[in-house]
Amino acid sequence: MGEGVDDGVGDGKARRMPRAVRERQMLDAAVVTFGRRGYRAASMDEIAELAGVSKPLVYLYLNSKEDLFTACIRREAQALVTAVRSGVDPDLTADGQLWSGLRAFFTHTAEHPDAWSVLHHQARTHGEPFAREVSQMREEIVAFVTALIHEAAQEAHGATELAERDVAGLAQALVGAAESLAGWANASDSVTAKEAAATLMNFAWAGLGNLMRGERWSPRHQPAH
Amino acid sequence: MGEGVDDGVGDGKARRMPRAVRERQMLDAAVVTFGRRGYRAASMDEIAELAGVSKPLVYLYLNSKEDLFTACIRREAQALVTAVRSGVDPDLTADGQLWSGLRAFFTHTAEHPDAWSVLHHQARTHGEPFAREVSQMREEIVAFVTALIHEAAQEAHGATELAERDVAGLAQALVGAAESLAGWANASDSVTAKEAAATLMNFAWAGLGNLMRGERWSPRHQPAH
Repeated sequence: MGEGVDDGVGDGKARRMPRAVRERQMLDAAVVTFGRRGYRAASMDEIAELAGVSKPLVYLYLNSKEDLFTACIRREAQALVTAVRSGVDPDLTADGQLWSGLRAFFTHTAEHPDAWSVLHHQARTHGEPFAREVSQMREEIVAFVTALIHEAAQEAHGATELAERDVAGLAQALVGAAESLAGWANASDSVTAKEAAATLMNFAWAGLGNLMRGERWSPRHQPAH
Repeated sequence: MGEGVDDGVGDGKARRMPRAVRERQMLDAAVVTFGRRGYRAASMDEIAELAGVSKPLVYLYLNSKEDLFTACIRREAQALVTAVRSGVDPDLTADGQLWSGLRAFFTHTAEHPDAWSVLHHQARTHGEPFAREVSQMREEIVAFVTALIHEAAQEAHGATELAERDVAGLAQALVGAAESLAGWANASDSVTAKEAAATLMNFAWAGLGNLMRGERWSPRHQPAH
């Protein structure tokens, strides 16, 4: 069987397709199936059918259901990180970068709801090694957001006045809020990616602004607890 | 075997203990074991040993590893919701209620890191029916936070000026941020529950305040995207 050339299994329509193309079709079908039906319920039969190939070919290319699922997680994690990074123009001010990054994030999760379901639900609800794949992606995004917040603080004050810990906390809060809002926006037909980004940007920017101005909420009107 | 009375299985020390007490010891041991070692790696042997009872007694009381895990999730979800609700004094202003609720949340997750690991990681990473148990708890907390934000908006303006969708979005963002910060605070020895609550309160309150004053962040200084 020639390297990178179709091996003739499957229906006529799909013949003579390069291996990379065929594999992408299988992954596309797998992401849809895993995302909508869940990892356990998804069958290799329906994935093969949706991809328009035979089940043996799926096993030949991707080895096992576990390996296919891992390949889906890796591809979609990479796609999401790339979408966010390339959505950010480094020439913008830091708040503009944060805004464009959030828009890119919510646009991507809205356009790829099955992929988001794979990353946020399926990959995290079926143990290792899947959960580890997605937590690496999350750490990468947290690091990226942390750098943006640092930059924003520097821009606004000429120096990083925020403590490391405040910046790390804000980044964690922002990423957690974004994950939560992506699920909520996808579950609601009426919420656009731009609205989800705006909700979070208002939330984040106001909080960050107050922190930088030294204006913190304090429980001053409350009885001591 | 008498109802509610020890059946004599296990070592001498644990004899004549009411069933409820014995079951609680088993659940305590299971939460620690599942939380630290993970659902898959945890063995019924080590849970029984940690609880100071025989393995057959654990099976007699809790039936199976799955049922024991489900019982842990239910108990810990209930405990967390109760801690948050009872931490909130309804006579406080809405921001005071939010603050006290957040402090109760982060105090509880800091004091029960194994329980939080069971709820946030283990229950979500091992499929159904476990994931469903914890998403019911999450919906209850989102509803509670949504009501508090409504009240805060009403208090500040005498009327609910925020759109339903803005309120729902803020609640989703706040809960997601809190989940993210709880994991971060537990992973770092130096972050106290009060600091985690303050980080989020600053973030949330400033964002909510701006929204209520009609001050939204806007990409006015940015090139159009």
